[in-house]
Amino acid sequence: MAAYLNMDTLRFQLFQVHGLENILTLPRFADYDAEAVHILLDAVKDFADRELYPVFREMDEDPVRYEDGKIIAHPKLGHIIRQGAELGLCGSSFDYDDGGMQLPGTVSTMNYYIMDAANNHAPGYMGLTTGAAELIVAFGSDELKATYVPNMLNGSWGGTMCLTEPQAGSSLSDITSTAYPQEDGSYQIKGQKIFISGGDHQHADNFVHLVLARIEGAPAGTKGISLFVVPKYLPGEGGELIDNDVITAGDFQKMGQRGYSTTHLAFGENGGSTGYMVGAPNRGLSYMFLMMNGARIAVGRGASAIASAAYHASQQYAKERPQGRRLNNDGQKDPNQEPNLIIEHADVRRMLLFQKAIHEGSLSLVTQSSVYQDLAEHGPEEDREKYHLLLELLTPITKTYPSEKGKEAIDNGLQVLGGYGFCSDFVLQQYYRDIRIFPIYEGTTGIQSLDLLGRKISMQNGRALELLTEEIVHEITAASQYPDLQRYAKQLGEKLTQAKGVIGFLLQFAQRGEYERFLADATLFMEYFSTLVVAWQWLKMANAAKEALVTGNTPYGEDFYESTLHTMRFFFTYELPRVDSLATILQNEEELTLLKGKEVIA
Amino acid sequence: MAAYLNMDTLRFQLFQVHGLENILTLPRFADYDAEAVHILLDAVKDFADRELYPVFREMDEDPVRYEDGKIIAHPKLGHIIRQGAELGLCGSSFDYDDGGMQLPGTVSTMNYYIMDAANNHAPGYMGLTTGAAELIVAFGSDELKATYVPNMLNGSWGGTMCLTEPQAGSSLSDITSTAYPQEDGSYQIKGQKIFISGGDHQHADNFVHLVLARIEGAPAGTKGISLFVVPKYLPGEGGELIDNDVITAGDFQKMGQRGYSTTHLAFGENGGSTGYMVGAPNRGLSYMFLMMNGARIAVGRGASAIASAAYHASQQYAKERPQGRRLNNDGQKDPNQEPNLIIEHADVRRMLLFQKAIHEGSLSLVTQSSVYQDLAEHGPEEDREKYHLLLELLTPITKTYPSEKGKEAIDNGLQVLGGYGFCSDFVLQQYYRDIRIFPIYEGTTGIQSLDLLGRKISMQNGRALELLTEEIVHEITAASQYPDLQRYAKQLGEKLTQAKGVIGFLLQFAQRGEYERFLADATLFMEYFSTLVVAWQWLKMANAAKEALVTGNTPYGEDFYESTLHTMRFFFTYELPRVDSLATILQNEEELTLLKGKEVIA
Repeated sequence: MAAYLNMDTLRFQLFQVHGLENILTLPRFADYDAEAVHILLDAVKDFADRELYPVFREMDEDPVRYEDGKIIAHPKLGHIIRQGAELGLCGSSFDYDDGGMQLPGTVSTMNYYIMDAANNHAPGYMGLTTGAAELIVAFGSDELKATYVPNMLNGSWGGTMCLTEPQAGSSLSDITSTAYPQEDGSYQIKGQKIFISGGDHQHADNFVHLVLARIEGAPAGTKGISLFVVPKYLPGEGGELIDNDVITAGDFQKMGQRGYSTTHLAFGENGGSTGYMVGAPNRGLSYMFLMMNGARIAVGRGASAIASAAYHASQQYAKERPQGRRLNNDGQKDPNQEPNLIIEHADVRRMLLFQKAIHEGSLSLVTQSSVYQDLAEHGPEEDREKYHLLLELLTPITKTYPSEKGKEAIDNGLQVLGGYGFCSDFVLQQYYRDIRIFPIYEGTTGIQSLDLLGRKISMQNGRALELLTEEIVHEITAASQYPDLQRYAKQLGEKLTQAKGVIGFLLQFAQRGEYERFLADATLFMEYFSTLVVAWQWLKMANAAKEALVTGNTPYGEDFYESTLHTMRFFFTYELPRVDSLATILQNEEELTLLKGKEVIA
Repeated sequence: MAAYLNMDTLRFQLFQVHGLENILTLPRFADYDAEAVHILLDAVKDFADRELYPVFREMDEDPVRYEDGKIIAHPKLGHIIRQGAELGLCGSSFDYDDGGMQLPGTVSTMNYYIMDAANNHAPGYMGLTTGAAELIVAFGSDELKATYVPNMLNGSWGGTMCLTEPQAGSSLSDITSTAYPQEDGSYQIKGQKIFISGGDHQHADNFVHLVLARIEGAPAGTKGISLFVVPKYLPGEGGELIDNDVITAGDFQKMGQRGYSTTHLAFGENGGSTGYMVGAPNRGLSYMFLMMNGARIAVGRGASAIASAAYHASQQYAKERPQGRRLNNDGQKDPNQEPNLIIEHADVRRMLLFQKAIHEGSLSLVTQSSVYQDLAEHGPEEDREKYHLLLELLTPITKTYPSEKGKEAIDNGLQVLGGYGFCSDFVLQQYYRDIRIFPIYEGTTGIQSLDLLGRKISMQNGRALELLTEEIVHEITAASQYPDLQRYAKQLGEKLTQAKGVIGFLLQFAQRGEYERFLADATLFMEYFSTLVVAWQWLKMANAAKEALVTGNTPYGEDFYESTLHTMRFFFTYELPRVDSLATILQNEEELTLLKGKEVIA
């Protein structure tokens, strides 16, 4: 089987970079030690090797299809989901009392990373079911929990998140699905939802849809949205399943992730779909958003994992393919020499190092956010607010950087193969197509960027940014102890100072009430700031590698750590300097993208 | 029908930016005036609207397939090719004596641009047939010309270029196809060729393959390669077609351009394929490379055209799709307001302006190279060397910039549509897939970049670079006359000075014999230098727009010219500053991508 990730990289991230052992000392995780985590990761890897990777190409070549009102997915999908559920992968972070394993979210993230790298089409079905169950567990009544959650966690029922509507897209304030109160306290739900991932397939006995809708007469905008459980089939008292008028109206055919259904659902078209409110009225969006950090980290995780798989596929090709010759010292090539392997050519090495720098930097960022989430939820009480703020600030970046830069990394991976990269016989083109949805999922890059610059940077008077700065300075200080890391520490310190200037420049527009101008280049600010954040992660990885080498704690061999240091240097040499131009662009005095009177885009 | 280009943009490029009327004064083009060119462009646009655009989606959804040793392409392809040939589009720049229209290459480029924008799958069949015929016309015997060219130009026979072999890829020096001399002066050809675009389909009566092969015993490397005409069927004396043992061994299934066949051909497997040498022995590669400038401009042209089509498709969506609301001065949105059209949002406007800046900048670059080619071939004798050098320098950039940045532009176009951009119901995902081959075609970006930095920058002691600098300074001087263009003129002047420093830094490695180091970052140098070159093109467009506005010569309406100026400002504000970071990266003192002893990419 082709490699799609390096397990040593995952272990290094968890234990040597991000100190998972500190998290395992928290009372909630008393049943786990490092050994237990290693065993679990190996079991998931084995599952991914056996069940997920072998059907990855098939799920693309023979995609999900819509037939007679039903979605037909890959024949093995049901088996995969049930096997995954048996391993505990649905709801693994839930409380024991709620049917979970009380696993740290960080470990759960790594489990899904392994699955996503092997096959990014299948794990989404499990991930969304977990997310839907999590909403019920967190905000639903005991009856809702008891009725729906067990079958979701054992893999026999699917779960979904129903947000998007055809007319509203990203603008959730324009949702029109309506909930009509019934005498028994339930609601009749009417409305159309689109882009519902995993919204139907032949392998689940039932689907539990978490639906955003407005109670009739609710206020306009996001303040009038409530959350409902709307099952495809209502469980009867005798365990029978009763049709609930949830129609699968279609499946969106897509460029990638073709094995993962993207459905159009119609609720209550023929009589009525019964729904049950989760929590209080008009609080739906705030519930959804509490889950959204996790969902956004999951998107970043998936993108990082696809980039890992593409890296390994292109690296394998580069190590096996002879082509062309290295230049002699006179600038010529000798055609009588044997051709070199293409991994010996500098341009190919650059493309591989770029991919490694991006996908490992992304994984580190995802792991960092997961650690913050674990600490915010289960860490010492007095630190939770701090980690919550750090998580809030990092979330839009963790969703976006792996998605945008992972796309670019895979583009390089495809290019390594030349013409073969474009051909269906090789997997790179599938990774290239699959990852393209990630900058769109769960709030597009534009939306995430508005969140980062418009809300997170200035939240609590910039407190989150202050905390992040402290974390970055901490790594800079640590790196300054190693003579050969000092120049990189210094470089990151300079960029941090530069960032203060850029942020100050932009904030003055907000202070003057020029909000459109303030946020006009938010997407470029995301590109700017996320590069800085990933440089911090690379310095953190370098510190960990250095410490391992100095102390001789090198379980993955010295080359592994040297390679980490080399890739850090690559990131600081080839990627980090790009922020300088972005700083110039962000501080431009023109206002070229604002709509002003006459339309000039012709 | 959806718009895929703006004809005013083409006319502006030809007549107001690039002075086609000067070319039309050359003796060779005496039969053409501006009016004739306008009529021809309109005829091609009409052809593209009628025949090409309507089958564009179908050619993707029902791709070329391989059945029983034959390639089956779209049923209308034969009709399209014959209609195109009737319009004179095969070999339109050839001499009248050779069956051509003696059209300026610049106009011919624009004709193909129109076709590529409407449907980038079909015109390749005509373009390659023209290229193959051009080689025969330029270097072949009168007999070869008489036997093969007329049927190629009338659209009944196809033509191809057979360079790549499975084991050699981009490394043409490793070609092993062999030509065995026969007593009658012909050769028996044996070998495998892959990635042969347009190499077979059911609509052509015959195929004329231009094949690179080694005469038995020829020297190793590129100096032992000769060029042969190898027809699929040998024309008999009575006009009958005799099988020539050219087997279509397969069709590569691809991520994009699925309506354009990419064949695997086997020559002489069962007895022998008769071939006829073109020109002299061992000169094959030099002949091929004389045509290669044209082929590389054609790749840049195609990529520019796809980016134009994607721009127009995303712009149309943005003008029709209401979603979200602009921010008020207090940073809030009023949910009771009607949603805005998304073209009113700054981030969407940025994505559209980016696409416009890239695709029009690319078209201007392609047009510039075509003008240089016309002048190098048919201009005043004393200037030809100058224009030849300019063309040589611009060719790798003209191939690469539209391909790489067009890909990025279309990525933005897809993003404008959000989730719909990823769905097969919308065309953006097809453009996204189609353009991905362009950075690979006709020498990958890596190969083009080695050509630019390794050969072209220093050719004739830097004479080409000197000439280009003069051309750029000419536009800077012109722009300095307009007060509101002065800052952009100054900015470009500063970058030109910076570029001298960067080039000097890199050349010192060549001077020291460190060739691998010299060329290690050639691809980044391409990104750097091509951005500068396109900034020059934007300044040239701005000068033309300004002159039009000042003199009142505004045939496309004042808004058209204002929009051109606005887009130039966008390019100088959002794109050109990126060269600063690239200059830093290119002047790095580390050597991170060179293979040195131990392998560190793990």
